[in-house]
Parts: sequence; structure tokens; C-alpha cells
Amino acid sequence: MKAAIIGGGVIGGGWAARFLLNGWDVAVCDPDPEAERKIGEVLANARRALPGLYERPLPAEGALSLHTTIAGAVSGADWIQESVPERLEIKHAIYDEIAATAPPDAVIGSSTSGFKPSELNRTGARVIVAHPFNPVYLLPLVELVGDAGETARAADILRGIGMFPLTVRKEIDAHIADRFLEAVWREALWLVKDGVASTAEIDEAIRMGFGLRWAQMGLFETYRIAGGEAGMRHFLEQFGPCLTWPWTKLMDVPEFDDALVELIAGQSDAQSGHLSIRELERLRDENLVAMMRALKRTGSGAGGVIAAHEKTLSVPDTGPDGLPVTLEMQVPTSFVDYNGHMNEAPYLEVGARASDRVMEMIGADADYIAGGLSYFTAENHIRYLAEIDIGDRITVTTQALGGDGRKLHLLHRFWTGGETPAATMETLLLHVDLSSRRVVAPEGVVADRARTLVAAHQGHERPARLVLNQPRG
Amino acid sequence: MKAAIIGGGVIGGGWAARFLLNGWDVAVCDPDPEAERKIGEVLANARRALPGLYERPLPAEGALSLHTTIAGAVSGADWIQESVPERLEIKHAIYDEIAATAPPDAVIGSSTSGFKPSELNRTGARVIVAHPFNPVYLLPLVELVGDAGETARAADILRGIGMFPLTVRKEIDAHIADRFLEAVWREALWLVKDGVASTAEIDEAIRMGFGLRWAQMGLFETYRIAGGEAGMRHFLEQFGPCLTWPWTKLMDVPEFDDALVELIAGQSDAQSGHLSIRELERLRDENLVAMMRALKRTGSGAGGVIAAHEKTLSVPDTGPDGLPVTLEMQVPTSFVDYNGHMNEAPYLEVGARASDRVMEMIGADADYIAGGLSYFTAENHIRYLAEIDIGDRITVTTQALGGDGRKLHLLHRFWTGGETPAATMETLLLHVDLSSRRVVAPEGVVADRARTLVAAHQGHERPARLVLNQPRG
Repeated sequence: MKAAIIGGGVIGGGWAARFLLNGWDVAVCDPDPEAERKIGEVLANARRALPGLYERPLPAEGALSLHTTIAGAVSGADWIQESVPERLEIKHAIYDEIAATAPPDAVIGSSTSGFKPSELNRTGARVIVAHPFNPVYLLPLVELVGDAGETARAADILRGIGMFPLTVRKEIDAHIADRFLEAVWREALWLVKDGVASTAEIDEAIRMGFGLRWAQMGLFETYRIAGGEAGMRHFLEQFGPCLTWPWTKLMDVPEFDDALVELIAGQSDAQSGHLSIRELERLRDENLVAMMRALKRTGSGAGGVIAAHEKTLSVPDTGPDGLPVTLEMQVPTSFVDYNGHMNEAPYLEVGARASDRVMEMIGADADYIAGGLSYFTAENHIRYLAEIDIGDRITVTTQALGGDGRKLHLLHRFWTGGETPAATMETLLLHVDLSSRRVVAPEGVVADRARTLVAAHQGHERPARLVLNQPRG
Repeated sequence: MKAAIIGGGVIGGGWAARFLLNGWDVAVCDPDPEAERKIGEVLANARRALPGLYERPLPAEGALSLHTTIAGAVSGADWIQESVPERLEIKHAIYDEIAATAPPDAVIGSSTSGFKPSELNRTGARVIVAHPFNPVYLLPLVELVGDAGETARAADILRGIGMFPLTVRKEIDAHIADRFLEAVWREALWLVKDGVASTAEIDEAIRMGFGLRWAQMGLFETYRIAGGEAGMRHFLEQFGPCLTWPWTKLMDVPEFDDALVELIAGQSDAQSGHLSIRELERLRDENLVAMMRALKRTGSGAGGVIAAHEKTLSVPDTGPDGLPVTLEMQVPTSFVDYNGHMNEAPYLEVGARASDRVMEMIGADADYIAGGLSYFTAENHIRYLAEIDIGDRITVTTQALGGDGRKLHLLHRFWTGGETPAATMETLLLHVDLSSRRVVAPEGVVADRARTLVAAHQGHERPARLVLNQPRG
């Protein structure tokens, strides 16, 4: 699949990275001589951050090409994304050129923050709004507005690259999310202009409180909880009257003069000027990845999107040693510690996932556990043999050393490209009855498959030193 | 220290829990016969969630008492917090009663979302606004408005219970954060009323996109990044013109009639009605704790508040076995897995922190590491001896088994109240030169302290079975 990206700024570069890292070829059209460098920098951020959301590998990266003409970029494209400045006449001219040269069945999306499809298509184009959020390579949301058939096609494609398409039923200026952003922005400008709060104070007022609520539940579900046992109707009755109170200044818009620009830009320098934009981007991405990984566990919001996308990613069957691959993932930034390498603790997070995979392989899966039987880990022994860094891809292979009766004895090897493993993890699991919490022998399929797996791995080289499940001298 | 909480609803109960779990005695005044049950339920949520933010124990919980009169509750109080409905005449009557019976030097805070101090104090009270955010026991933000001396005193106290006081320089209706919430709320009501988006779609538009940005950076720092290399002034120039565009409907307020209430409440039921309020609260808290723990690593936003507060919490010197305590923490919900107990992986997160603490104890601290020397972990061996559950408090004690030369051999024991450890972790660390990444012998203070620690623990019982650093047969 091929995407053509028209306009290689922050948003266009983010789209390019999102498609590339999901295996698409990408052709960027941008006349800026700096375009290649700028896109390269967005791509470096994306490579560092996006794969760390998943416990499976993303597909092999597509090929990136740069073009100075639209015709050159859109040739053979399945998706064409326009991300140029918010000026209708520029957009119309681009759409005319796309119509003349692009495949007739390509999806044509516009990243416009505010224009409606009826405005975009005034000169006869067949563009839909596909409005993403910065950083495009990490945030899942894309607002789709326009022709029902085209937005449905677009939604399928976006889900395939790990995004969350939100189809807007009626076209409206600024779609949905940007209406909220604009409302908050206008209110914030008043607060700064009137000297009530600085840019830093406003940021604290958001991130120390409701920002944390909104990252996971949004507005209405949060208020549903605030209503408590009395429910949503009670909440609405309680807060309805405030609508007539002077709790916002939004009947009015501040004059956006030089003095206001200087005031805000100066406050922003004081607040964040000690960090470069690159450093801020990396901090933002590191926080986003860590928060989204946290949400992945419960499946809330963006975490649910990642979990669903992960299921569609494939893992190689066998590793460099010929043993089954039980996990393959890229090291997220949050795994790294003060020594500048992967901290000792996440090795066990990785190894534990590999053990979970072995359980699935022998039939001790979610259904089996729901039926009241499972495996508990009795012991783990991890050896750290070589350093692992941010962005390294870890391939875990697993050898079943023993699996007769109540014990399951495994050896996970962590490969990162070297001739020998970067780490090993020996683990001893015990089969338990979840109601009595006692060790019991597995029966049926699980017992059979465990034995079969051990038999299949018996001929494979065993490490000279094993410390678990050994005969005691 | 004692806090008196006037009004035991969702907000008052949250304040009670925040103070109690930080070691304050709390007297709640609420005439509702259901008050005790309701506060008990908030407290159960708080006990499950708040301690999981820290890798140190919170102080012993204070004593909770319930009262039906204000005089009974405020006696001897250092902080009095009013959280009754938003009706000025009710608040004024309560302030009169507080003035007649409370200690003259108690801080008196109001949880009001919208009223200004000048309105609250119209009848001669000396109340400040101390406006928190639900859930009060987790979210750090408290907006303080009012007398400079009183708000400064209040800020110190709030920092002591892990909160983030934001002192607002000018009084204004709805302070700062609620102005944004109100702006978004009004816009959202229009979108629902006009059939543009449902409550569920609006929540997705927030949590799949900008909600994740705001949880960590807020509004202006996010836009600073969006401006890219060209900076904040460029961003402002680009988006300034939109202020005159019809990107929000906020010149106007929807009529809040029964039809709108039914529309919203019905959509909210469809969106979230499959979960009870209790289940939603637990999900929210689990997500908040996991995201805030993620932010703690980088120190951004709420994570920085938690990290700073954690430093003020004390850890006992010695554990049940007389060995030094190297970690004490409560098991957060995110540590628990499909087997209904603490997953195997976070044991190593806990043990690794205990190893870090030992490094600090012998002088291999952040400064030492910045100087180019550190310890790397070579091997870990964890034994899982008893199950550990959500909310259990883990006390880790550490025995230095060997520490001569380049190796440091430790045994961490995990205690959760039983006669014997719930887990043990044997670990072998190697002293390294961070520039050559090679193992080198420590010198000076670190070498001396390591030897001293091992000597001090030599008489302590050693486990019968050790697998690391053993003579090879």
C-alpha cells in the first residue's frame, strides 16, 4: 500500500511516519528544501516512540520518497493526505492537481482543522476531512467527515494503521474536538490577557486535575461518576443552572494584537524555554507512550485501540535458534534507567509475557483460566548477558525444558541481533486449581500439549547451567 | 493534626480520605443518615488507590469521626473544609456557625466551584477558596483564592498531604480550571442538542486525542511544541486569525430543558450504563494511578508532585527480621493479573528498587553514577512463596551476603505480615565503569561501606538454598 502526503510539516510528517511504520510506502510532496530533514526528525521521534506501545513487532517499514510535484507523489497511491496551511484557495488548487493525476479510487483526506467537506469540495473535488492530532504517529484520533462511502473506506484503512476513526455525522466548522480546543483556547487567552493566570499556571490547572480525567474517560463519563449514585440526571439538574452564570467569558473574543502575542510568547519562554522543542517532543512522547501503555492494561480509551491493533500484528514463528518465538517487541523509552540501558525489572515483564504465550500455546488460555485452572510462577532466574538499549528489538524464544506433571520448566532466551542471547530467563511454573489455590496436575489437552512441547524441544541444546528444578544434592 | 469536613458528599468524602490517608484525624459533619456508608465507600476506593502511587508507605491512618453538628466537628481542627451545595445562603450560615465555635487559627477552605472569596465572605467570614478536583484523594490540584497570608498557610498544608496548590492571583468567577470545564461543557451541550455528536462520541473525541496531551503538559506547552522550530510566536500568528472564525458556538448558551436532560442522560446510559458507578470509579482510579505512576518516572505534572511528596515519607529502619528495610510500599492495582494476585513481573520492579536503595546506602548514589561508576545487575533469582494481593503492604528487607571486590551479592526478603517471607529475591550486582562498560573494583567509600554492610549481616541466618555466586562444582 502507498500513501501520498501533500505537505511535509509537523502534521504531514506525522502522517508519513504513521504510514511508514505500519508498513506502507510513503511519497511526500513538499517543495521546502528542508523537507527531508524535517520529516527525518519526525520519523526519528516516531521510530523511538510508536513501536514501544506494542508487545508485538510492527511490520517492516515501508519506503519513503520525496517529491516536488503532486503528480510525482500521488502516482499509484491508495491514500492521499493533504496537510497544507488552512487557506481554501491553496487547498482547492491542490485538489485540482490531485484529480488530474491520482488513481481514481484513492482515498483523498484533508487534515484541515476547521473546514467542512462542502467548503473543501466547492470546486468539484471528492475530498473527505481526515483530521488527526499531533503527534499523529502516537495519538489515535482521526475525525472523518464527508461522503458516507468514502469515510467508511477511510475508517477501515485507519484502523489498519492503529488509529481510531471517529466519523462525524453532520458537518460543522472545526468538527468536534477542535471546537473544545478553540473554546478553551479563547478562554485561556482572556485569562492571560486579563492577568488572572500565566501560561504556566493555566497548564498546571489543566494537567494537575481534569487533564488526567480526560485522558482516560473524557467529559460525560467523568461527570456520570461525579453524579454518583444519584446518576447522570441528578448531575445535570445540579449543574444545569450554572449555564446562566458568568463562568466563562466566551460571549466575547479578545483582540489578538502584538501586545497579547508578546505576553503569551514571553510567558511560554519562561515556562518551557529551558527545553528545546526536540527535548519537549521527546518528553511528551515518552509520557504518552507510558500513559498509553498504562491504559492498555485496562483497555480504556487509547489503550483499547492499541490492544486491538496489537492483535492484528504478526510474530515470526521461529527465532534465530529455531525455537518458537514467544514474544517480539521493541524496547520502549520507559524501560530504560539511569545506567542508560534497559533496566533489570522490565526483563521480567518481557519474560512473563513469553510465559503467558507458552500457556496459550498449550491451551492454558483465558478460557481455561476462567474455568478455574491456571499456572502460577514458583521461581525465576534471569541472567543479564549483554546490555539492551532503547529501540532495540527483543525476540524471545522459548525452550520447554520439562513439562510432565504439575511443573512446567521453561527457558526464555532474549535475542537482540547478536550471536548469543542478550539475556536468559529460566522459569518454573506450577499448575494450580484457582479455587483451592493448590498445586494440581493438569489433565487433558493441556497435559498432552505440555508433554508434546517438551518432547519437541528435547533435542535442542540446553544451557550448561540451570538452577531451577534441579536434583538437590 | 485534625481536619473538619463540613458536608460528606463525593467531594467532602474525598477530602476526608485524602487527610485520613495522610495521617490526619478527620471529623466529618453531615446530617445525612447515609453519610457514614457513603464516606466509607469513598474511603475504600482511596485506600485501594492512593497508596499505590508511592514506593514508600503513607503514614498511619488518622481517626475518623462523624458528627451531626458543626460545633462537634470543628473543635480543635487545624483545617476546616466546607463542601456543601453551591448556594451562598447555606454557605454563609455555615461560616457563621464555624466562626462561633472553631479555633481562631484554623484554615477555613471552601470547595466552591464558582464563588469568589468576596462573595463567600460577604457576611464577615474569613474563608478562602480551596477548590479540589474529583477524585480528591488522587488528583493533586487545589485552586486557592483569597487572603495572601491564608492561602500561603493553606498551600504549605496541602503540599504536606501530597496536593498541588495553585494560588490564583485575582478572584474571578469559577477560578481557572472550571472556566475551561464550563466552556467545554457548554460547547458539548450544543453538539449533543444539535445532534452533531453523542456523549460517547464526544468522550472519544477527547480521550483519543487532546486528553492524552493535556494529562501531561496542558494547553500552552502542547501548542509550543505544535509551533515546532518556528516557536510560540509562529504558532500564535498561525492560529490567531481563527479567533474570528465560527469555531465555537459559545456566544450563546443552549436552553437546558427536560428534552436536553433526557437526551444526554439517555446517551450516557447507553455509553456507560453497563458499568455501575462503583465499577466506573474503580476503573477511573486504576487508570489514574497507572498514568500517574507513568508520569512519576519523568517527573511531569502530577508525577512530579508524587515524586516530591514521596521524598517526605519515611520508611522504617528495620524490618521484622531485624535487617534494614530497603523498600516499603502498597501493591497498586496495576500489579495484579488474571490470577487475581500480584503478577510475577512487578516483584522484580520492587526488588530492583530495593537494590537501588542498597546502592544509595553504600554511597553508589546519583552523584556517584554521574561520576561514571555504577552497578549493573548480572543475575536475579526470585522465589514466589506466598500470594500477594492488591492493597497488601510489602516490606522488603535486605541482607548483604557478599560485597568484597567487584561483586555485590544481596538477598531481598518480601514481607507482607506473615511469619515467613512471601518472596525472596537473590541478586548479584557487578561494579562497572560506565564509559568502558567494563567490570571494575569499587574504591574508597563505596568499597568500604559494601564490606561493612556484609560484615554487619554475616551473623544473620542465610537461606539454605542460594543459587547465585556459588562455588561451581
